[in-house]
Amino acid sequence: MSYARSAIARIAGYVPGEQPQGKPLIKLNTNENPYPPSPKVIAAAREFDFARLRLYPEPSARIVREAAADLYGFTPEHVICGNGSDDLLTIALRTFVDQGGKLAFTTPSYSLYPVLADLQGAACQPVELDSDFNLPANAAELAGDAPLFILARPNAPTGTNTPKAGVRELCRQFPGVVWIDEAYVDFSDDDCLDLAREFPNVVVSRTLSKSYSLAGLRLGLAVANPALIQEMNKVRDSYNVDMLTQVIGAAALRDTDAMRTNASRIVATRAWLAAELTRLGAEILPSAANFLFAKPLRPAADVFADLRVRGFLVRYFNLPRISEYIRITIGHQADMEAFAKAFAECGR
Amino acid sequence: MSYARSAIARIAGYVPGEQPQGKPLIKLNTNENPYPPSPKVIAAAREFDFARLRLYPEPSARIVREAAADLYGFTPEHVICGNGSDDLLTIALRTFVDQGGKLAFTTPSYSLYPVLADLQGAACQPVELDSDFNLPANAAELAGDAPLFILARPNAPTGTNTPKAGVRELCRQFPGVVWIDEAYVDFSDDDCLDLAREFPNVVVSRTLSKSYSLAGLRLGLAVANPALIQEMNKVRDSYNVDMLTQVIGAAALRDTDAMRTNASRIVATRAWLAAELTRLGAEILPSAANFLFAKPLRPAADVFADLRVRGFLVRYFNLPRISEYIRITIGHQADMEAFAKAFAECGR
Repeated sequence: MSYARSAIARIAGYVPGEQPQGKPLIKLNTNENPYPPSPKVIAAAREFDFARLRLYPEPSARIVREAAADLYGFTPEHVICGNGSDDLLTIALRTFVDQGGKLAFTTPSYSLYPVLADLQGAACQPVELDSDFNLPANAAELAGDAPLFILARPNAPTGTNTPKAGVRELCRQFPGVVWIDEAYVDFSDDDCLDLAREFPNVVVSRTLSKSYSLAGLRLGLAVANPALIQEMNKVRDSYNVDMLTQVIGAAALRDTDAMRTNASRIVATRAWLAAELTRLGAEILPSAANFLFAKPLRPAADVFADLRVRGFLVRYFNLPRISEYIRITIGHQADMEAFAKAFAECGR
Repeated sequence: MSYARSAIARIAGYVPGEQPQGKPLIKLNTNENPYPPSPKVIAAAREFDFARLRLYPEPSARIVREAAADLYGFTPEHVICGNGSDDLLTIALRTFVDQGGKLAFTTPSYSLYPVLADLQGAACQPVELDSDFNLPANAAELAGDAPLFILARPNAPTGTNTPKAGVRELCRQFPGVVWIDEAYVDFSDDDCLDLAREFPNVVVSRTLSKSYSLAGLRLGLAVANPALIQEMNKVRDSYNVDMLTQVIGAAALRDTDAMRTNASRIVATRAWLAAELTRLGAEILPSAANFLFAKPLRPAADVFADLRVRGFLVRYFNLPRISEYIRITIGHQADMEAFAKAFAECGR
């Protein structure tokens, strides 16, 4: 007998990518940035007066919202901050989807989306991406009467960028809220912020975990019409972003040059690795993210295991349509050269 | 028309105590600790290698759970960490209470509890505290078939400590989960951790916001039977406690001497202020927390406003049974002496 509600007792919960403890593995499994945060960010953290921690943080993370508003060309009233963008996704479910309701999301995509539906006691309405992992033309129709549609662009774990025209069409047609998860957008050529400006039902979320090298900090942002933001603020924990995260996060959003330099290096290494793995017989999906989704000649599960023996931890998903692929986070150029050598030994 | 579910669209949300920006007020309104965190905690923060923030944190906050387990005499499997104890309370609602279900909680108490019920789309089953603000003998019966009963001990905003025998009886009789919110316990003479050891349906939660002087950090803990912890872990965001919070929080839980020294000073100042305000005609509830709940001779709302003019921000609740009181956080002895002077001018 469990004390939990049945929606919780019957599920397993989300399993995050492994964080190996003390093993000498090169981590290419959770899309972390190989470069440290910018020197200005580290300086802001070092200069912080830790005695201030005795006080509660400003509840709305105002300094972060102001920095994000300046960067994105919105007002602070268009921005909400989360304890990571996962926190914002949870807030989205709780704001827009009733228990017994439905969550629409594209598939294959971020495996957290169906878990969030489970936790809310909502049904899943998956919308299959087409053979190129792009949004189908009838996506709005396939989502039915779900009040919320989550779409990752660039998509994870495929890395693909579905054409923006189709996303705009979805925003126009879908009667509920369209949530565009742009966790990887800084490694892409374009973004959908203009859709949040154009449509009252569109939310675009960002994270500082990938491009800003701040996965350990937990800071996510969402941009939308202030009416949507207000509803989400009711659900948000009052002090969900701690004081130090606000200071460090605001410093990061005010120093995008450092972020863009690192993102460019990652994009260059990504191009190099894609060519190299193609040469080694793998089929590589076009990537707009800081990882590659690669189909090796040998079974992906075997390649995953063999790479681990050689000291490289990548990600393998034993799930429909993607079980023939491994996902490789782009690290330093030198690490990727070593990785390509290992892949040459076991990937073909 | 709102895109939000009706449970959210119709509510106002929780309003936290004011964090005045840039005004020269002495803050006695949100139960912050007047003393800074311990020197060892500040040293741990300063020595942290901020470049590590590029990586995700350990998902379960293992180092914090280990420190808490050592301190409380449990195992790490008995402990779950939250982004503040408010995060844990949200997790509790989502784990144990269905939309359309019921949340039982004592009243008057922490005003977040009914808001959490609203957010979950659950009904409130308030259990009135008796005339001394203690738990009634038939509390379990009054809670009806609610799956979760939240009780703050010491209580906020009254500061009172309901007799433990009654709490034990509630744990024994109530068929659902009893959540004992011990946010203020380090200013009290006893605690209920043994009830979490004795009963499979009891959770005791703690926070580092008050006694550890770390409100800005956001770290809460809950201790319970591992079966309960496992269910709550399904609902918890995978990376809800950031890397730096883990390091700082673990250091704090390993240096309780500093915390206890500050708590003792606050308890001594509390006794002094209680005597002084009594002398000035106020009726003071016996407090086991880092604040006093005081009924002045003049109307409390007027005293609140007059104190603010004199530079002191306290908390006033315009709510049934407590609208004749003001809540005064215990600050430095010198600040409280200045406060008593101001109260002498406007409180009687």
